[in-house]
Amino acid sequence: MIGFAEVVKRLLVGRALRSEKLHERLLPKRLALPIFASDPLSSVAYATQEILLVFSVAGLAFLHLTSWVATAVIVLLVVVVVSYRQVVRAYPGGGGSYAVASGNLGPTAGLVVAAALLVDYVMTVAVSVAAGVDNIVSAFPGLHEHRVSLAVGLVAVLATVNLRGVRESGRVFAVPTYLFIGAVLVMCATGLFGWVTGNAPVAESAGWQLRPEAGYEQLTGLTLTVLILRAFSSGCTALTGVEAISNGVPAFRRPKARNAATTLAVMGLISATMFAGITALALISQVRIAADPCQFSGTGPDCADLPQRTVIGQLAAAVFGGHDSVGFFVVQAATALVLVLAANTAFNGFPLLASLLARHRYLPEQLHMRGDRLAFSNGIIALAAIAAALLWVFHASVTDLIHLYILGVFTSFTLSQAGMVRHWGRALAVESDAGVRRHQRLARTINAVGALTTGLVLIIVLATKLTEGAYLALAAGVLLWSLMRGIRRHYDVLATELAVTDPIEESVAPARVFTMVVVPRMDAATVRALGYARALRADHVEAVTVAIDREDAQDLLRRWDTSGINVPLKVLDSPYRELTRPITAYVRSLVRKSPRDVIYVVIPEYSVGRWWESLLHNRTTLWLRSRLMLIPGVVIISVPWQLPSSRRLTRRLTRRPLRRAPGAVRRGEPDPRADRG
Amino acid sequence: MIGFAEVVKRLLVGRALRSEKLHERLLPKRLALPIFASDPLSSVAYATQEILLVFSVAGLAFLHLTSWVATAVIVLLVVVVVSYRQVVRAYPGGGGSYAVASGNLGPTAGLVVAAALLVDYVMTVAVSVAAGVDNIVSAFPGLHEHRVSLAVGLVAVLATVNLRGVRESGRVFAVPTYLFIGAVLVMCATGLFGWVTGNAPVAESAGWQLRPEAGYEQLTGLTLTVLILRAFSSGCTALTGVEAISNGVPAFRRPKARNAATTLAVMGLISATMFAGITALALISQVRIAADPCQFSGTGPDCADLPQRTVIGQLAAAVFGGHDSVGFFVVQAATALVLVLAANTAFNGFPLLASLLARHRYLPEQLHMRGDRLAFSNGIIALAAIAAALLWVFHASVTDLIHLYILGVFTSFTLSQAGMVRHWGRALAVESDAGVRRHQRLARTINAVGALTTGLVLIIVLATKLTEGAYLALAAGVLLWSLMRGIRRHYDVLATELAVTDPIEESVAPARVFTMVVVPRMDAATVRALGYARALRADHVEAVTVAIDREDAQDLLRRWDTSGINVPLKVLDSPYRELTRPITAYVRSLVRKSPRDVIYVVIPEYSVGRWWESLLHNRTTLWLRSRLMLIPGVVIISVPWQLPSSRRLTRRLTRRPLRRAPGAVRRGEPDPRADRG
Repeated sequence: MIGFAEVVKRLLVGRALRSEKLHERLLPKRLALPIFASDPLSSVAYATQEILLVFSVAGLAFLHLTSWVATAVIVLLVVVVVSYRQVVRAYPGGGGSYAVASGNLGPTAGLVVAAALLVDYVMTVAVSVAAGVDNIVSAFPGLHEHRVSLAVGLVAVLATVNLRGVRESGRVFAVPTYLFIGAVLVMCATGLFGWVTGNAPVAESAGWQLRPEAGYEQLTGLTLTVLILRAFSSGCTALTGVEAISNGVPAFRRPKARNAATTLAVMGLISATMFAGITALALISQVRIAADPCQFSGTGPDCADLPQRTVIGQLAAAVFGGHDSVGFFVVQAATALVLVLAANTAFNGFPLLASLLARHRYLPEQLHMRGDRLAFSNGIIALAAIAAALLWVFHASVTDLIHLYILGVFTSFTLSQAGMVRHWGRALAVESDAGVRRHQRLARTINAVGALTTGLVLIIVLATKLTEGAYLALAAGVLLWSLMRGIRRHYDVLATELAVTDPIEESVAPARVFTMVVVPRMDAATVRALGYARALRADHVEAVTVAIDREDAQDLLRRWDTSGINVPLKVLDSPYRELTRPITAYVRSLVRKSPRDVIYVVIPEYSVGRWWESLLHNRTTLWLRSRLMLIPGVVIISVPWQLPSSRRLTRRLTRRPLRRAPGAVRRGEPDPRADRG
Repeated sequence: MIGFAEVVKRLLVGRALRSEKLHERLLPKRLALPIFASDPLSSVAYATQEILLVFSVAGLAFLHLTSWVATAVIVLLVVVVVSYRQVVRAYPGGGGSYAVASGNLGPTAGLVVAAALLVDYVMTVAVSVAAGVDNIVSAFPGLHEHRVSLAVGLVAVLATVNLRGVRESGRVFAVPTYLFIGAVLVMCATGLFGWVTGNAPVAESAGWQLRPEAGYEQLTGLTLTVLILRAFSSGCTALTGVEAISNGVPAFRRPKARNAATTLAVMGLISATMFAGITALALISQVRIAADPCQFSGTGPDCADLPQRTVIGQLAAAVFGGHDSVGFFVVQAATALVLVLAANTAFNGFPLLASLLARHRYLPEQLHMRGDRLAFSNGIIALAAIAAALLWVFHASVTDLIHLYILGVFTSFTLSQAGMVRHWGRALAVESDAGVRRHQRLARTINAVGALTTGLVLIIVLATKLTEGAYLALAAGVLLWSLMRGIRRHYDVLATELAVTDPIEESVAPARVFTMVVVPRMDAATVRALGYARALRADHVEAVTVAIDREDAQDLLRRWDTSGINVPLKVLDSPYRELTRPITAYVRSLVRKSPRDVIYVVIPEYSVGRWWESLLHNRTTLWLRSRLMLIPGVVIISVPWQLPSSRRLTRRLTRRPLRRAPGAVRRGEPDPRADRG
């Protein structure tokens, strides 16, 4: 058939042209690491601090338990990384946690993961920006009272940059990320070397006395266990963002799955090392930090506003020789930068997820295509607005925001690994080769261990953080889940209504065709519309105008009569200054008289080139169109007249290269600019 | 001709049906007074206070001059009222200051008046709400620190009420207005009676000592004159809103012009009486009020926040026996209510003015018709937002806001009376009857005196208030003026481009017609579109789809081949997940090949009934339409498929009565509800 041949030819030719450039466009591992791993790597900047903050409510007594908790977090990190390497190998097409959950556990579970991921994106922005501001304030303590404004301002900057569609470039990410890794590793190495040689670094808060909060002076076994669990669930913030690589496998160079798995392993190793180093150094240099600064002895009545430097800031100062040292500012700058970049990943991950969800009709279908740029802009604005609101409500406090963050993260961890267990189960049911089966059984065990541990952590997080703020995240997730389910149900009901059974009968041709031209005024656009209307095969043609002002209507009638136009003009009365009602009432009367006819309503429109011109034209005809579309048996024909500005717009459009869509880098999409010429 | 006969019949029949009900719908004088006069009547509530505030910067020395300034204001009020009675008689069709200025002084002057009136509407809302809050706080001093929030909240309430389209009912306005008039007159009468019988009321601030501000201790003749002029220009706030009746003459019962003129006179009389009474009482009871409360002796370091009751509040308390008396609360309640109603007049006057300006193409044309409710909603929101911003910036201070208010008011006064002078001049040039000529010369003299005096006041206002805030109003007026001129110029340029010369040649019929059906997916809407497409007289019909996902495209091809559809399907490649570019590129290629042909692009659409459904459907096709409309030689045919919700919407629409448009009462428009049945 003609159709088939066309498709085959185009696809082949198109692919052939692009295949050479494909390799260069995809990401090498060294650039993929910064783009996908900036989120998890940056979260080690505040994970240690969060553990210390939880223990500090009990004074100095249990700070030493930090090392045990950190070890548990590292073990969990290793488990999750190894588990996600299986995901990456099994799903090389990307899609990550959502694809795994919906493919193996059913659409409902997939939707839960999707809702959790959407909440995650918002929280990533909020927490990363808050932590970044923390570090900026550590470098410049005078900014302490402007924390919230600074945080909201940063979110606004990120939103603006993303609205303008700046390309997510690997190089832009690489510098700050590697700088951060290098600075932290150098700092840890220097500090540990000093400790070994007997010249251990000492934090500025080392000597501060910390009183326990009320009720925490004596801790029994139960309350101590609860405290340890709370510290552990806060420390698990170091794992946030690990799944990003599994979403972006198509962006890697071949062999995609292996490179992605390797990058994941490297990321896990670096994260674990940095986290261990920071924690060790924190204990060595005896950093003291408290959620409520009034716990420190010797503070005055304004103790609640006492500025405290971040743990990583105190370590940098202790190792590199004070708050004026170059090393201190380098570490703070790199930390703040990588945290801001981590926030940016949410703006790029969102269109990817939205496109996938839209394809499955859980979100409006236009998010699956490039056509509607406005949809993505709205999404970016919504994301930024909610993050900014959270920062404002919680005073840009990382500790408070983390309570909302962890819940979504571990929901998607647990469900995706449970999905993998079922995936391997299904594979084992059909696989016969012994070697492959052994490998699959091993993979299944790894994922099962991962699912159980993260499931346990999920329960711990729910138990310890629900009342402290996680209920908000839970409510938001439930809301999103209901919304997406409602959208899908709407589309499904519609598909049933609109279904065409095979064999497809052609609809019966209408009996008669009646053409009606709407005449707002006598101008060139109307004359063109009249000409096109008469070119249609119509049994009857007439023109219709509405008499909103009597003098205008009489003028029009006079000109019509004296012109050579051979189409009768009907003037509809309009006592209430309306255009739409008289016309729709008239059309309805025609439809009632002859229900089997089709009425073509021809409407002249102005094609505009500038956004503000659409405020000055076509508004009333758009309203008319929407009302006419409600009448069965009516077809609306728009005859455009191109205004001069629209011709200029056409020249600009045909000349302007197609820009890369947001998130295209992560999708591994072809770059239109590379294809031209 | 057919057309002519139709119009005549409809208009006659329509009017005949409605003429009996016409009389009942228009406003009797007793209801017109509250609607049109609430603004000027309410401004006497704060006019006296403003005069006293200006004089108080010089301490107690010149407070006695208030009576002279008040007298001058009353004289000006009489002049303006008498002058506007001429306007009302000469322009019984309404249109007020704008119609007079643009008809007699040219469109530029008319536009200046229009810009001034638009600024006026915003300031009416801001000043009236601020004064209303002042009086509420006088009754409940505990609310003093929440003034600004209260004011912004009131503006939000007014906006909401107007967005919902509550009818501007004469009765709703009548009660508070007459209550206010009655309460104030009773208060003045009681107070004056007490004074005459030797029992003069004494204000609470009567004994307070007032120090002059720095630099005002010794006043020379020049600086004293300037002070008096400043006080006078502040006192002129009593005249704001006088022209409202001239805009609304069509709303009166017959004889319209005479009733309107009478109402104007009554309004002037009542205003003058109340103003004189309040001023006299203020002087008798020795009210002391200061712009800067620190001027009072015996105030502490927190003097800047010292609450002061409004003058009218102090008078009520003095006359009726203290702040707990019933009379005090009645006066305060009535004052606050009438001020809020005065703010509401702006929301109703705006659509009237906007419709007139839109008819002359100074504003987007859809504002002239009822069709686009969204335009008016946007206007109401804009009005409320700017008023709220002004209240927030100026801390809801009536004194500060008045500096912006008077400028626009007196600009329109001066220009409209100057326009009347020219109007009478033109009438005199053609009039021969001696009696009429005498009357016209008298009218011209009255208007000339009015124009000169208000012109003088305008200069005084500019000189005294420009630096104190009037520059903002001036800048806003200039901005609006440029905007409206720009819109008019755009429409004019377009009219030239689109002009059709007589005799009107019919456009040449196209050579060939090529029909192209866009097929997003195989469903009932598409099948209907295909059926309608084949019903057109086309030389060639084909279907086009875009392969965004390869599997979906192949599915579609398969179904198409096995169906009985006799239309070839062309599949366009889309490597960048776009719908629009492939289709527009293909259409452009067709146009290039045969420039004289017409291409009908048939697009199936979904007709939706709920607002959120339009977020889920049609978005991409709307984008496609707007891009296709840029291509000359293309006609877009929309074939709607009515979703179930659209059928429900149709039932609701045909059943729901047409509501009265905002401002319809002032226009004297027929009431659709009265016409049904």
